Amino acid sequence: MVDKNNYDERTPYQLPFPADAQQEIVIPHAIPEDERHWVPQADNVWFRPLCLNRSQGYWMNLLRVRKSGVLSRHRHPQPVHGFVLKGRWHYLEHDWMAEEGSYVYEPPGETHTLVVPEGVEEMITYFQVNGVMCYVDPWGEILGYEDVFSKIDACKKHYEEVGLGADFVQQFIR
Amino acid sequence: MVDKNNYDERTPYQLPFPADAQQEIVIPHAIPEDERHWVPQADNVWFRPLCLNRSQGYWMNLLRVRKSGVLSRHRHPQPVHGFVLKGRWHYLEHDWMAEEGSYVYEPPGETHTLVVPEGVEEMITYFQVNGVMCYVDPWGEILGYEDVFSKIDACKKHYEEVGLGADFVQQFIR
Repeated sequence: MVDKNNYDERTPYQLPFPADAQQEIVIPHAIPEDERHWVPQADNVWFRPLCLNRSQGYWMNLLRVRKSGVLSRHRHPQPVHGFVLKGRWHYLEHDWMAEEGSYVYEPPGETHTLVVPEGVEEMITYFQVNGVMCYVDPWGEILGYEDVFSKIDACKKHYEEVGLGADFVQQFIR
Repeated sequence: MVDKNNYDERTPYQLPFPADAQQEIVIPHAIPEDERHWVPQADNVWFRPLCLNRSQGYWMNLLRVRKSGVLSRHRHPQPVHGFVLKGRWHYLEHDWMAEEGSYVYEPPGETHTLVVPEGVEEMITYFQVNGVMCYVDPWGEILGYEDVFSKIDACKKHYEEVGLGADFVQQFIR
């Protein structure tokens, strides 16, 4: 036990963690070495779950898009944060390009269509998506949606199919 | 104008964005080329703001720690997400090492002390910190805190001192 009159900034916390605290998630290679960790989402589009937060309704994931991939037009009622790990992409609705090493904040109310430009073999972006993605037609009529629960279901289905087992997704759920 | 009976997944959204929507933030080189963008936080510890969200009380930033740097013992009442861009670090209170390319979810209730191990010249991690960081003694007594407002104030002070002007921080605030 550390002396209360003799500790410094490298003295660890001395008490137990709260009994009701969740477990942390530590994923050493977020870009996975096992191809099966990527969950198919659309043509040439995959996601890799990192945290599927059912208590607050958001998900942290890597989005991977390969050449000619498009993430369909969608609206976000809540903020999204992106950090580009590989390649580059843009939105049909904006003039800028999200290059490797970029950070992007997407405010609530955004409607956009993610496209990977010609010449890019692969892009990978770490995204936090809050609430819901509403897939829409060009005039904003809702065609479908995704939320943390549809993401969890997609993971269960895929991980069962590729032999990891539906329960493989449990490690990402909080 | 696009024909309503003849559009595809690469047809952009056709309507204006909501009048009250915020502007997006796009930061092409999140790891800045201009050293002045790093805001000093403690000995050998700096942060680089990306999004300082005053309406929801969280901040997205890069944390940089150089050799012998320690991010003092602190407690998080809300979730934290980390993605290691460079180097590695660990918490005195856990056995795992956060290596380059790792994702870490820190649940509410965590109390920990971030240390960069010997041999690492520099680590940079992209963190989302929600709510507040409570700096604590080894028994959890609060010694100080940081929130999005203290981060904004630290940025204003630093950017004024290095000649970028206090208003330089405005681009990160939402």
